[in-house]
Amino acid sequence: MDELDYRFLCELAAQLRVDSVRAAAAAGSGHPTSSMSAAELMAVLLARQLRVDVENPADPANDHLVFSKGHASPLLYAMLKAMGVVSDEELLTFRRRGSRLEGHPTPDVPFVDVATGSLGFGLPVGVGLALAARRLDRLPNHVWVLCGDSELAEGSMWEAFEHAGHEGLNNLTVIVDVNRLGQRGPTRHGWDLAAYAARLGAFGWHTIEIDGHDPGQIDFALADARATRRRPTAIIARTCKGRGVSAVEDREGKHGKPLADAEQALGELGGPRSLTVPMTPPASQGVPYRYADGPLVLPKYELGEEVATRTAFGEALAALGTARGDVVALDGEVADSTKLETFAEAHPERFFEFYIAEQQMVAAATGMQARGWTPYVATFAAFLTRAYDFVRMAAVSRAGLCLVGSHGGVSIGEDGPSQMGLEDLAAFRAVHGSTVLYPCDANQTARLVADMAGLEGIRYLRTTRGETPVIYGPDEEFPVGGCKVLRTGGQATIVAAGVTVHEALAAADLLAGDGVSVTVIDAYSVKPLDSPELVAMATATGRVVTVEDHWPEGGLGDAVLSALAENPVPVRKLAVARMPGSAGSAEQLRDAGIDRTAIREAVLAMLP
Amino acid sequence: MDELDYRFLCELAAQLRVDSVRAAAAAGSGHPTSSMSAAELMAVLLARQLRVDVENPADPANDHLVFSKGHASPLLYAMLKAMGVVSDEELLTFRRRGSRLEGHPTPDVPFVDVATGSLGFGLPVGVGLALAARRLDRLPNHVWVLCGDSELAEGSMWEAFEHAGHEGLNNLTVIVDVNRLGQRGPTRHGWDLAAYAARLGAFGWHTIEIDGHDPGQIDFALADARATRRRPTAIIARTCKGRGVSAVEDREGKHGKPLADAEQALGELGGPRSLTVPMTPPASQGVPYRYADGPLVLPKYELGEEVATRTAFGEALAALGTARGDVVALDGEVADSTKLETFAEAHPERFFEFYIAEQQMVAAATGMQARGWTPYVATFAAFLTRAYDFVRMAAVSRAGLCLVGSHGGVSIGEDGPSQMGLEDLAAFRAVHGSTVLYPCDANQTARLVADMAGLEGIRYLRTTRGETPVIYGPDEEFPVGGCKVLRTGGQATIVAAGVTVHEALAAADLLAGDGVSVTVIDAYSVKPLDSPELVAMATATGRVVTVEDHWPEGGLGDAVLSALAENPVPVRKLAVARMPGSAGSAEQLRDAGIDRTAIREAVLAMLP
Repeated sequence: MDELDYRFLCELAAQLRVDSVRAAAAAGSGHPTSSMSAAELMAVLLARQLRVDVENPADPANDHLVFSKGHASPLLYAMLKAMGVVSDEELLTFRRRGSRLEGHPTPDVPFVDVATGSLGFGLPVGVGLALAARRLDRLPNHVWVLCGDSELAEGSMWEAFEHAGHEGLNNLTVIVDVNRLGQRGPTRHGWDLAAYAARLGAFGWHTIEIDGHDPGQIDFALADARATRRRPTAIIARTCKGRGVSAVEDREGKHGKPLADAEQALGELGGPRSLTVPMTPPASQGVPYRYADGPLVLPKYELGEEVATRTAFGEALAALGTARGDVVALDGEVADSTKLETFAEAHPERFFEFYIAEQQMVAAATGMQARGWTPYVATFAAFLTRAYDFVRMAAVSRAGLCLVGSHGGVSIGEDGPSQMGLEDLAAFRAVHGSTVLYPCDANQTARLVADMAGLEGIRYLRTTRGETPVIYGPDEEFPVGGCKVLRTGGQATIVAAGVTVHEALAAADLLAGDGVSVTVIDAYSVKPLDSPELVAMATATGRVVTVEDHWPEGGLGDAVLSALAENPVPVRKLAVARMPGSAGSAEQLRDAGIDRTAIREAVLAMLP
Repeated sequence: MDELDYRFLCELAAQLRVDSVRAAAAAGSGHPTSSMSAAELMAVLLARQLRVDVENPADPANDHLVFSKGHASPLLYAMLKAMGVVSDEELLTFRRRGSRLEGHPTPDVPFVDVATGSLGFGLPVGVGLALAARRLDRLPNHVWVLCGDSELAEGSMWEAFEHAGHEGLNNLTVIVDVNRLGQRGPTRHGWDLAAYAARLGAFGWHTIEIDGHDPGQIDFALADARATRRRPTAIIARTCKGRGVSAVEDREGKHGKPLADAEQALGELGGPRSLTVPMTPPASQGVPYRYADGPLVLPKYELGEEVATRTAFGEALAALGTARGDVVALDGEVADSTKLETFAEAHPERFFEFYIAEQQMVAAATGMQARGWTPYVATFAAFLTRAYDFVRMAAVSRAGLCLVGSHGGVSIGEDGPSQMGLEDLAAFRAVHGSTVLYPCDANQTARLVADMAGLEGIRYLRTTRGETPVIYGPDEEFPVGGCKVLRTGGQATIVAAGVTVHEALAAADLLAGDGVSVTVIDAYSVKPLDSPELVAMATATGRVVTVEDHWPEGGLGDAVLSALAENPVPVRKLAVARMPGSAGSAEQLRDAGIDRTAIREAVLAMLP
């Protein structure tokens, strides 16, 4: 690096700082001090290492940059201004209504793959981007992740460090902005760079400790990171929060607020600049590898056959993998239970084992979908709750994910409540733009597993551990947002899904013996629910019983009530109201009051 | 250790193995091979290091033993049999309906503090137990945690390793049962004990690598662990899954199932024994330290004053801390935002900083409540989703926790959706036995913050970032399960909570101008909801509008629908239906369609 380069980098860093201060000042809120600490780090990255085609943010050969410390968004937007992607005028719309420059970045902004702002999310997504580049796209682009030091307290970061270290992802570089100060006060390790280096080194990373305000050291470290083989690199940079402005530099209590005297600060920083960085495009055209598509030959199951829906999921996903080359599968070390194993056997090169690290698994899927892949993520429904924040952030990222939770409900039997997904329908209904599916038989499962690939947003499908009888033919269609009316009777409507469909059918038989005729609805599409059909049937029968293998709150019953809200009829909800223990599957359904007997009693009690 | 001791320990280990096999065989399910790998580890711990009063499981001086690998429950129950706590007859009720010996342990079992079975939960709880012993109870008892090797992939474990290492919790010992095989196949690191030791060493732990089937090495390591100063100890033990039975020893595909030929296995293990271990009681009487109780002097706010409910929370909790010596507070490095800082200033010795590690924070609270403390945990509502699985497991643990989520809803304004709790009401409603509170003003907040300490189970309270007017006097009561009827009118009922209460009141004024009289209900107790009052008001007015700063699913609207399910009237739900961006607080409420104008329009649209 010659003197001219050096001076340019210093000026560029000053500009990034100035623009961060200006953006936050214009907004009246934001995180300028968290931006100022990383100004040199990002200036050097921008000018000397980041390879992107400014005209084509979607170029698959582009490097990726993830701001895991999403609150440093002013710095990111200042970089985009220096790249010529965002105008100065737009920069000053930061945090205003209607501006794409939100308080925390989202993919509405060019060159942003995912939303960040929940700390500990960006790096695991970066691992997914790097895995996609290395093992799927087979492209040489590099993934750069800017992390805060506070953020390293999050366990999800260590899931990522472990996964990347073990995979030897040398196309991934983490830049840790060790500015010593968290939101509330000093971080656990302060400026003890060695504490971070020791930890990361033990996790298999190449580590470089530098002065994060020295362009020369930064330049050397970034080049070293890109050139490092077989290992990911962590650049651990000592920085000052609020660097460059004496009123805030390295001071507590200055997090997350604009500078009190922006004019004075801009003076101290030498005033605005209007540098534009001539970005280096990727070295080669990026043509990502894609697996061939083939015919879709879904498994077919005989009527009356007893098949677990988790088994049908595995077989259907394997078939879908043959049909669609973009389908990939991610496992949390339970593929033998979820039956994702069937996909792994058919398509080993598109199967990713994440061991028991659900957050990293969901984040990696989020990274992969950003690169155009269609990820299916499977673990026990209960254990997907471990990644609930990441699913939330995937929704904010406008990501498309297929999540499959097995072992739904008390029907799993002896393993007990720690293994039972009993809040999953509520949790996933409450994800923005989500689809929630809950099939009751193998053919229905196969069809929904295939169809969910074509949807958008977060899609969740719940499977059942035990075997259930096949009640639909293999050619039946199950449109998302539809339902199936399995029996028609005039005195009540029973709405069930998954395992309780079979109990509802049995209850209808019992009730027929009582001289009571009921309608039975299979609400396999819990969200969106088939409101018109439900309203019609509920109105026609005058009363509804809902029955679900789930806690009473937020699941099927509440979904049905919501569908009927403006056209109400009396509804009785049957759900799991007590904490289960160990017991057989049938015993569990009985104890929970969601079996055929309980349904029959509920209907009889509602009759006039 | 003399020859006699050695032989006894070998026999005891054999008995634990035999009983694990017998229990799983009787149940027809379970995890005997995961139990067999740790038989010597637990035999030596039981006979030589675990200090408990068998007659008094509640003795505060007892050591604690946490099976973080909860699926090894047969081994735990076999230990309890060897302790004389569980009879052989009861052992064979394993996993049967009604037995307290469930598939995964729960606190229904003596000497079990928390439910385990979701991997990665037990160790962070152990950190909480050790913190409680050291910094609260001030007792010298020791916390022993048995972990699996697969489990070390969970990020929550590294939150725990970091926290315990940094605190120097030498009263905590982790025993890692490195049996090389996870559920699906080999673990990431296999028998590379050094890989684990390097990581743990970097995190500040004393590490000991041993042969986990050698009683002599185990005994040395356990004694060393207890004697180690200033650092927690990790005993990293090389073991064989299914040890002792050739049909399963170190074989894949043998996880989570009873041995195919239990008779043959028992023969190979030398058949049943009936050893009883004379347990060593704690050295001294355990009288835990307790802070003095004092008078409860809650803050009082003037009618009409503008105060953020998060501010009232902080001030009320500080007052509650003075009144109740058992109250402790846990922060996720956002105490300045949640206002937990006010408690920290008043009671620094009962304030715990967990940095940005929400899972460890919730788990530590779960450990502390097991020792009789009353923990309040606070972070942004959005970030509590990071710990959702741990809240779920706390409920299975029958734990009492007070969780407080700040920055609920779009009303936070410019920070954008990553920081908005918009699914929290749904998520926490769907926790078994939970209470969900959402106050709208400062006096109501103060009262609810104090009252929630007296409840059981998981209690969640949502606070608001911005200021809201005080509408209740300081002496008003807010019983949990109640509501407040703020206006009475005949044409519709508006049900609101938190920030939307103020919008509902304003809408009522606008509607009065339209000549429409409405009832306004403040549903501060979202769960349990005041069903009788709601039914009465809804029936009297014939129509209901619900309005909430939350996604449409699973929150207040669904709760109201559920309350009215069997006595329905038409309900229109107003909630946040689109993904928000950045904007001012009032703009956000307007854009989301949950402000006074939207409420007015909804009521007018429902009128005949």
